[in-house]
Amino acid sequence: MTLLHDDRLFPTHGRARDLARALYEQVRDLPIVSPHGHTDPRWFAENEAFPDPAQLFVTPDHYVFRMLCSQGVALTDLGVPRADGGPTETDGRTIWRLFARHYPLFRGTPSRLWLDHSFQHVFGIDRRLSEDTADWYYDHIADCLARPEFRPRALFDRFNIEAIATTEAATDDLRWHRMIRDSDWGGRVITAYRPDGVIDPEMAGFVDNVALMGQQTGFDTATWDGYLDAHRARRAFFIDHGATSSDHGHASARTEDLPRDQAAALFAKALRGTCTAEEADAFRGHMLTEMARMSLDDGLVLQIHPGSRRNHSDDVLAMFGRDKGFDIPGRTDYVTALRPLLNAVGMDPRLTVILFTLDETAYARELAPMAGVWPCLRLGPAWWFHDSPEGMRRFREMTTETAGFYNTVGFNDDTRAFCSIPARHDVARRVDCAWLADLVASGRLEEDEAPEVARDLTYGLAKRAYKL
Amino acid sequence: MTLLHDDRLFPTHGRARDLARALYEQVRDLPIVSPHGHTDPRWFAENEAFPDPAQLFVTPDHYVFRMLCSQGVALTDLGVPRADGGPTETDGRTIWRLFARHYPLFRGTPSRLWLDHSFQHVFGIDRRLSEDTADWYYDHIADCLARPEFRPRALFDRFNIEAIATTEAATDDLRWHRMIRDSDWGGRVITAYRPDGVIDPEMAGFVDNVALMGQQTGFDTATWDGYLDAHRARRAFFIDHGATSSDHGHASARTEDLPRDQAAALFAKALRGTCTAEEADAFRGHMLTEMARMSLDDGLVLQIHPGSRRNHSDDVLAMFGRDKGFDIPGRTDYVTALRPLLNAVGMDPRLTVILFTLDETAYARELAPMAGVWPCLRLGPAWWFHDSPEGMRRFREMTTETAGFYNTVGFNDDTRAFCSIPARHDVARRVDCAWLADLVASGRLEEDEAPEVARDLTYGLAKRAYKL
Amino acid sequence: MTLLHDDRLFPTHGRARDLARALYEQVRDLPIVSPHGHTDPRWFAENEAFPDPAQLFVTPDHYVFRMLCSQGVALTDLGVPRADGGPTETDGRTIWRLFARHYPLFRGTPSRLWLDHSFQHVFGIDRRLSEDTADWYYDHIADCLARPEFRPRALFDRFNIEAIATTEAATDDLRWHRMIRDSDWGGRVITAYRPDGVIDPEMAGFVDNVALMGQQTGFDTATWDGYLDAHRARRAFFIDHGATSSDHGHASARTEDLPRDQAAALFAKALRGTCTAEEADAFRGHMLTEMARMSLDDGLVLQIHPGSRRNHSDDVLAMFGRDKGFDIPGRTDYVTALRPLLNAVGMDPRLTVILFTLDETAYARELAPMAGVWPCLRLGPAWWFHDSPEGMRRFREMTTETAGFYNTVGFNDDTRAFCSIPARHDVARRVDCAWLADLVASGRLEEDEAPEVARDLTYGLAKRAYKL
Repeated sequence: MTLLHDDRLFPTHGRARDLARALYEQVRDLPIVSPHGHTDPRWFAENEAFPDPAQLFVTPDHYVFRMLCSQGVALTDLGVPRADGGPTETDGRTIWRLFARHYPLFRGTPSRLWLDHSFQHVFGIDRRLSEDTADWYYDHIADCLARPEFRPRALFDRFNIEAIATTEAATDDLRWHRMIRDSDWGGRVITAYRPDGVIDPEMAGFVDNVALMGQQTGFDTATWDGYLDAHRARRAFFIDHGATSSDHGHASARTEDLPRDQAAALFAKALRGTCTAEEADAFRGHMLTEMARMSLDDGLVLQIHPGSRRNHSDDVLAMFGRDKGFDIPGRTDYVTALRPLLNAVGMDPRLTVILFTLDETAYARELAPMAGVWPCLRLGPAWWFHDSPEGMRRFREMTTETAGFYNTVGFNDDTRAFCSIPARHDVARRVDCAWLADLVASGRLEEDEAPEVARDLTYGLAKRAYKL
Repeated sequence: MTLLHDDRLFPTHGRARDLARALYEQVRDLPIVSPHGHTDPRWFAENEAFPDPAQLFVTPDHYVFRMLCSQGVALTDLGVPRADGGPTETDGRTIWRLFARHYPLFRGTPSRLWLDHSFQHVFGIDRRLSEDTADWYYDHIADCLARPEFRPRALFDRFNIEAIATTEAATDDLRWHRMIRDSDWGGRVITAYRPDGVIDPEMAGFVDNVALMGQQTGFDTATWDGYLDAHRARRAFFIDHGATSSDHGHASARTEDLPRDQAAALFAKALRGTCTAEEADAFRGHMLTEMARMSLDDGLVLQIHPGSRRNHSDDVLAMFGRDKGFDIPGRTDYVTALRPLLNAVGMDPRLTVILFTLDETAYARELAPMAGVWPCLRLGPAWWFHDSPEGMRRFREMTTETAGFYNTVGFNDDTRAFCSIPARHDVARRVDCAWLADLVASGRLEEDEAPEVARDLTYGLAKRAYKL
Repeated sequence: MTLLHDDRLFPTHGRARDLARALYEQVRDLPIVSPHGHTDPRWFAENEAFPDPAQLFVTPDHYVFRMLCSQGVALTDLGVPRADGGPTETDGRTIWRLFARHYPLFRGTPSRLWLDHSFQHVFGIDRRLSEDTADWYYDHIADCLARPEFRPRALFDRFNIEAIATTEAATDDLRWHRMIRDSDWGGRVITAYRPDGVIDPEMAGFVDNVALMGQQTGFDTATWDGYLDAHRARRAFFIDHGATSSDHGHASARTEDLPRDQAAALFAKALRGTCTAEEADAFRGHMLTEMARMSLDDGLVLQIHPGSRRNHSDDVLAMFGRDKGFDIPGRTDYVTALRPLLNAVGMDPRLTVILFTLDETAYARELAPMAGVWPCLRLGPAWWFHDSPEGMRRFREMTTETAGFYNTVGFNDDTRAFCSIPARHDVARRVDCAWLADLVASGRLEEDEAPEVARDLTYGLAKRAYKL
C-alpha cells in the first residue's frame, strides 16, 4: 500500500492521461527552483535536527491548525505559541494525537496531499494517519528526525533543491545567510528584500525600523533622500546575500507616483505618526513605484502580493499574534491601482513586476489582459488558498488564453513547511502536465510543443523571471 | 422510454462513472432532510388535494414563469395572482398549454430536470411535455391529484422525508404547525424563525409588526429591552413548534455590534419611521449580532441569506407584488461585513452561523477561508440560481480545498414547489457523488473514505448542522 | 500534415466526442452570420488586393501585437502606425520575421487557433510558422494575395458569409456601404449605428461631431430637441444602409432616465464643455435610455458593450493612439446600472437589448438572472478576451442554467481581422457542440433536441436577435 495514487491529478483516462504521464516523466526529476518562500534560513545555517513531529507538522503550519480551529479545537491545545504569555500545550505527543483524530477534516484539501506526500516520500510511511496510527506515526517520525539524513541540509539535498529564497525584513542582519555562505555546504539559500516594516506607516515599529535602517546604512533616514538612499543600501546588502527580488505584501495593489515634495511630506508625517489611513495608503503606494525605480538600477524583481485582510479575529491577534490563519482575502483591483507605477516605469525593459492575487476574479478580467501587454508584468502562480489542484487549474484556464505561458513565472511554494516543498512542487508539476495534456488532446497545443512548455513551467520560467 | 437518463449528472465514462454509480447507490434511498424551505405548512395540516396541474407546477414557481416572461409571455397569461386586483388567467388548461408550448425554453436548465423528475417519479409519465402532449399531461396529472395517494401527507411519506422545515414570519401564529402536531400523522414538519418583518425598518408594516409582537408576548416592544425580550419569547414559541434555526434575508451581509445606547436609539428612530437608509442598514446589521447572542442561549442556528436586490421591476412589483422572479443578485462582501458579529461571538462553541451566497466569487475568496477558520461558521449549499448541477459543482470546486467537507451543511432545497423536493435532493446527491468520484479517480480522496463523505453530504451534515 | 487537429475543441473521448462530431457535422457548413464586427467596408467597396502578409496578419491585429509587446518587442518594430508622426517599420518581410520568431508565445491562445486556421484554410498551408519557415510563409501568402480569388469579395463569398455588419460612427457618410449597394456584387454588408462620438461629452471632438450631425440632418443640434431629432435622422440614414442595430461602448453599464429639463441642461453643459466627470457619465447613461426609446419606434437592436478601461498606457496612447491593446477590463455592475433603462422601457415587446461583458463574474450573478426574466434582454456571446474556447465554455456553464439558450444571441466575431472570421465562427461552433454533447452525455439534454439547439446557436439566434 502507498498513501498516494501514482496517477493522481492527471486526467482520469484515455489519451490525455497517457500524455500527462509522459509529460510528467520529463519534469518529475527536474531540480526544484523555489524563488519565493518562508523557510527559516537558520535551519540551513545551524543544521540542527528538527524538533518533534508536532513541531514539524502541526504547530507552525497555519493551513493545518486553522482547519482544526474551524471545528472547535482550541489553538492552545495545538501548541500554537502565545503572544500574551499564557499557557499552551507543549507535549508533542498530545498535540499529535489531537491532530491525528481530526485527520478526516483534510479530505479533499491540498494539505492532505502535502502531508501524505511528506509522510510517504520523506518518512517512508505506508499507512494512513488516524487515531489508531497516531502513536506509531509519532514514534516513527521522531526516530527519523534524530538521524543525520533528516537534518535540514540533508533534506535540502535529497529534495533536489537548486535554489531557495527565504524572505527577510529590510532591517534583518542576514546572519544566517552569511553563515550558510561561509560554510562548506553548497546549498543555494538566498534572501529576498521585504521592506513592509520600513514602508508601511501603520505597521507596529515603523519609526524604529526606519531609524534602525539609518544606523545600518549610515544615511540620515529622518530625511526623504536619506531614507531612499538607505533603501538602496539595504537592497545592495540583500543582493550581496543572494537576493534577486523584493517582496511587498500590502492590503491593496494601490500604487502612486507622487511629486517629490508630496512624497517627502508624507514621509515626514509618517515619521511623526500623524498620517491618516488614506495618507498611509498613499505612501505605501508611492513606495512601490520608488521600489520599481530602484529595480531599474539594481535589477531586483518586484513581487506584489496584495489582497489579504489580516487578523480578522481581534481575540486571536491579541492572544496569539499575527499569521495565525485569520487572514482573509478580499476583492482586489489591479487596473486602476497599478496604473501610476506602470505609467512611470512599466515600459522599461529592465523592470520585472510579478503580480499575485487572492482574488481569482482578477485572473481573466485584469491580470491576464495586463500581463498580456505590459512588458514588465508577469503573473505569479496560484497563491495561498489557491495553491491547490483546483486553484492551479483555474489559474491556467483563466490566464493562458490571454497572457500565454510566457508571461507566467512557474511555481512558488511560498511555504514555511519545509517537508511540504517537494510535495507542493509535485502537485504543480502534475497539474500543469494535466493541463498541457488536455490542451494537446483537444487540439489546442501540438504534441511536439508540449514538453518544452512543461519544462519551462517547471524550471525555465522561474529561473528566467527571478534571474536565478 | 423514460424522461430521465439513469446515469445523469455522473462522469460520462470510465472508472469515475463506476465510482459515482456505486456511491450514489449508497445514498439514493437515504431519507430526505430538508432543513430550509418554503413549503406551505397548511398543506400538511389540512391535507387537501392539490388543485389543478397549472396551480401545482406553473403559477407558484418563479423559476418557471420568469423564464416564460423573459421570452415575452405575460405573467397574467400564466395566472400569476395580481396584487393590484386586475384580471389574470384562471383556466388551468389554458395556462398549461401555454407552458407546454414553451417547454423547449427550459433545455439545459435545472427546472427541466426537476419538472421531468416530478413527471416521471411522482406521476409516472414516460413521454415528453410539448404542445402535442399538453392535454394528455393535464388530464393525467389532474386525475392523479384527485386520488388520496397524491395528497400532501401521502406524498410526504412517499418522498421519504424525515424532517422538513418551513419558514414563518416572527409574528406568525404557527396554527398549521400546531394542527400538524396535534394530528395523528407522524410527519415531522417544523418551522424556522424569520424575523425580517420585525427587524427591517424599511419593510412595509415594520411598526405594526413590532407592536403585534408586543401583544403576542406581553412585552413592551416600544422599548429596546422589551423588544429584545419579545424576540426571545417568540424564538421560544417557535422552538416549541420545532424550530432549530432562524433565517435572515438582508440585502447585504452587514453586521454591527453597537453600544447599547446607540442600538436603542436606532430602534427608537425605526419605530418613529425616521431612520435614514444608512441607519436602517446599521440597525439590521446590529440585529444579526443580537440574534447571534440569543442563539448562544436558545441554540437556534443562524442562517444568513444575503445578496438579493429585490423587485428590479417597479411595474411588476406594483402589479404582482414581491417574489415574482425579479430579484436579482448583486456583489456581496463578507469579510468586512461579518467582522463585528464574529468578533462579538464568533469563537463561542455554542454558535452556528450558516452562510449562503448569490455571489459565487465569494466562495473561494471569502467564504471558504472564513469557514475554514472561524469555529461558528458553516457554508450553506449552492443557493437559488446556483441550485443547479453547474452551480453545485462550482460550490464544491471552490470551497472544498480550503474549507473541507465538514464546514459545509449538506443540501437545502429552499423550495415552494413540493413535488420538486425529491428531484432537487436527487440532483444534489448525484452531483456530490460525481464530485467525490472525480476526487477518487484523480487520487485526491481514497476510495474507502468516499462512502462516508457521501453519506455525510447527503444526510449527516444536515442533521448535525441544523440539530435535527 | 495539417496545422489543425480534426477533433479540436471536442470532448476527448467516448460518447461525448461522438455526439460532438455529429452535431458539428450539422452546423459546420451553415452560412456565417456576423452581426457585429469591425471589418472595413472599403475592402468590399473597392475590392482591392490586401497588401502584404504583415499588413494582413500582424500590424492591424491588436491580439497579435500586444502579445509581442508583452515580451518586450517594440510596437514600432511591428509596423504599428504612429499617431505622433514618428518612424515605424514599413518592411513587411522584416515585420513578418519578427512575428514568426515569436510565434511560440501564442501557444495555448485563441490567436494561435485563428492564425493556424487562416493559414490552413485560407492559404492552404501545411507547415508550422517558425523562424525557419518565415520566409516561405511570407512568399506564399504574398503570392496568394496577388491573385483575384484572394480579393475581399472573393474571400467573402468563399467564407460563405450570409451577412456581415460593420460599425460606423454616427457621423460617417457611409460612402463605402453605398458603393457596395450600388455595385453588381450581391454580398450583404450592412452598417451599425455607433454614436459614442456624439454621445460622450468626454470624447475628443464631441462638440464638432454634434455640429456635424446637425449639418448632416438639417436639425439644430444646439438644442436638445434638435439633437434628438438628429439622432433619429441619422438612425434612419443608417437603417437605409442596412443597419439593424446600434452599438454603445461606455466604460460602465450606467443608465439614467432623467426628467427632460435635466437631460436638456446636461446636454447644454456638454456642448459648452463644462460637464463634470459625473455629469458626463450621467449624460451618457441617459442617452442609452433615449436610444432605447428610439428603438421602440425604429426597431434598432441596442447593443451595450461596457467595461473596458481604455488606454492604460499614457505613452502608448500618445505615440500610437487608441485601440493599441492597452484597453483593460474592469469590474462592471449591471443590476443597479441598468435599472433606470429597464424600468423605463424594459417590458416593451418592441425592444431588444443585447448585453456584453468583460467581467465574467457578472454571467451567473447578474446577467443570466436579468436576461432570464426581462423580456427585452439578451446575452451577447463571450466577448473580446473571452472570445476563446475557455471563455465560451465558461459563458455557457454560467448562463445556460438560469437564462437558457434562447436568451442568448449566437456568436459575434467582433473582429477587424477578416481572415479570422471563419476561424472564429468555427471555434464557436465547436465549443457549442462540445457543450451540447456534454449535456447530452450527462443526461441534461435529450439527444433528439441537441441538433435544433446547435443550429440555433450557430445560425437561428443571430438572425432572429439581430433581425437579419
